[in-house]
Amino acid sequence: MTTNRQFNLKRRPEGAPVADDFALEGAPLPKLADGQFLIRNHYASLDPAMRGWMSDADSYMPPIPLGAPVRASTIGIVEDSRAEGFAKGQWVMGLNAIEDYSVGTLGGFTQPIDPDAVPSVTNYLSLFGAVGMTAYFGLLDVCEPKAGDVLLVSGAAGAVGSLVGQIGKIKGCTVIGIAGGAEKCARLTARYGFDHAIDYRGKDRAALDAAIRALAPDGVDVIFENVGGDILDAGLNNLRHGARIGLCGLISEYNAPGPVGARNLWQLIVHRASIRGLLVADFVPRFAEGAVQLGAWAAEGRLIVDEHIDEGLDNALPAFMRLFEGSNQGKMILKIA
Amino acid sequence: MTTNRQFNLKRRPEGAPVADDFALEGAPLPKLADGQFLIRNHYASLDPAMRGWMSDADSYMPPIPLGAPVRASTIGIVEDSRAEGFAKGQWVMGLNAIEDYSVGTLGGFTQPIDPDAVPSVTNYLSLFGAVGMTAYFGLLDVCEPKAGDVLLVSGAAGAVGSLVGQIGKIKGCTVIGIAGGAEKCARLTARYGFDHAIDYRGKDRAALDAAIRALAPDGVDVIFENVGGDILDAGLNNLRHGARIGLCGLISEYNAPGPVGARNLWQLIVHRASIRGLLVADFVPRFAEGAVQLGAWAAEGRLIVDEHIDEGLDNALPAFMRLFEGSNQGKMILKIA
Repeated sequence: MTTNRQFNLKRRPEGAPVADDFALEGAPLPKLADGQFLIRNHYASLDPAMRGWMSDADSYMPPIPLGAPVRASTIGIVEDSRAEGFAKGQWVMGLNAIEDYSVGTLGGFTQPIDPDAVPSVTNYLSLFGAVGMTAYFGLLDVCEPKAGDVLLVSGAAGAVGSLVGQIGKIKGCTVIGIAGGAEKCARLTARYGFDHAIDYRGKDRAALDAAIRALAPDGVDVIFENVGGDILDAGLNNLRHGARIGLCGLISEYNAPGPVGARNLWQLIVHRASIRGLLVADFVPRFAEGAVQLGAWAAEGRLIVDEHIDEGLDNALPAFMRLFEGSNQGKMILKIA
Repeated sequence: MTTNRQFNLKRRPEGAPVADDFALEGAPLPKLADGQFLIRNHYASLDPAMRGWMSDADSYMPPIPLGAPVRASTIGIVEDSRAEGFAKGQWVMGLNAIEDYSVGTLGGFTQPIDPDAVPSVTNYLSLFGAVGMTAYFGLLDVCEPKAGDVLLVSGAAGAVGSLVGQIGKIKGCTVIGIAGGAEKCARLTARYGFDHAIDYRGKDRAALDAAIRALAPDGVDVIFENVGGDILDAGLNNLRHGARIGLCGLISEYNAPGPVGARNLWQLIVHRASIRGLLVADFVPRFAEGAVQLGAWAAEGRLIVDEHIDEGLDNALPAFMRLFEGSNQGKMILKIA
């Protein structure tokens, strides 16, 4: 008899998640009701936002219940079905969990995908998933960059950040990326075509501030912010009049016991600038538009998409923690089967 | 021979300004060049923003030079003139300094005003000055409140805040004000017509958060922020989807050696909300429009404008410090002559 191995949340993490917060546990295979189908998960997307779902704070999604498997976007193959349109063998993608098998429901969020339409089926978790759509709509719709603008991207070597910078280049911006370590910085300019890279390691707020100023003496028009803390503060100190900050994430604060907060908000007054929070869910009705454009740019070789795939459910935690250590090179994905 | 007493900045304040940072000093009356006129200052506007001008940080205006009189909006009477259009006896208003006499220049910022057009000539420093225009354009243009919106105003008993709340009521909002002390809170509801008042004294971040939630269980649509720190953080915790925060000031941080910063910016992501910095200077070309509307509302009795006038150049510092102690009741003005 097959068991369903599940990466369960056993305790809400305090600060950085540790092994004792989770357990890989076996459960019987779920039974299907009418309108349901069984998904054999092949890949799970690992995203910084999942850290928020592990806490019990009110957010845009309910917390993951204790004892339940960790929520994640997955792609897999339908193995059994009592739902019309979801035949055995069909590839699907949906918001499920880190587990061998998930149950999809007709009319739910799980959608069929075509593996032959993309270079790799995992692209549905990177370029054609939340990551690609966040970069595309977050930059173009929320930040409204114009040709000639200076665009500053933090978390620039990450899955979203690397796409944001490349899209900024396509749109005619001068792009500055902030990342951790010389290797990542080299990747930003050599591989992703950023104009400049700033290594935040070993730099305090004043040094970050100075590094941005040296590259953008007249200030930046757009910030795509993934990090928060000192990095956001340094960006706030280098705004041009009317600058737009798209707030995508605050990864430096997710594991912090007491976040430092943004101490340079007064610069928004000085420069009549704005910070706007963005969430990809708002753009779901326009995902097809984003997919067409992103796919075209990728096919033309103007957009490089990197994926970092770790293997095995028993590697779920170390793979997830790469996002916070910064040891992933590209969109973090866990191969389950 | 007349001397010009000047309230000079002698040292840049660290934290709260103290007496030794300033000196009231006499200088000879300035000589006029062609195109200049001599203003006998009667009233000076005292505003929180002046604290920023006393520091040496880059801002939207250059720092006040050490040894120079403290920059302020003043109104006064032309006493001598070598400038066409500025005859002796003409009332004028401009960005001058806290001193007996200032020099105006043709084509500069000093403009004639008509004392007979207003209930009190000091209204040019309150309702028809930066305070009134900040409230009017800051609320209506930057925050775009709609009828039925819940509007949260911090620093609500202050000159700008009290007008913002009243304009919000005129526009059909439910208005919640945050102020310090029972007396001010009573003034908000009884005198300015706010729907609710929250006394921030003795409340930590969690208690502020709970107080807002109790009055606005579905969250707030608009925040007009004058204060920052814990008060902004509590507001951020109570946003409705798509909320707009107009950032007018951060008075709690101006004298703080290490500002605490905004630690709840992640709520902008959760609620797809925005913070936008606002400065009244952007609306100068539309001041006439604002003045007509504000004047009409005041004449109809729908807008109450309070002024707190302290007297004498030797009271400049204690009068200014009322803004930070919260002991003023209305727009803070110093009567010079």
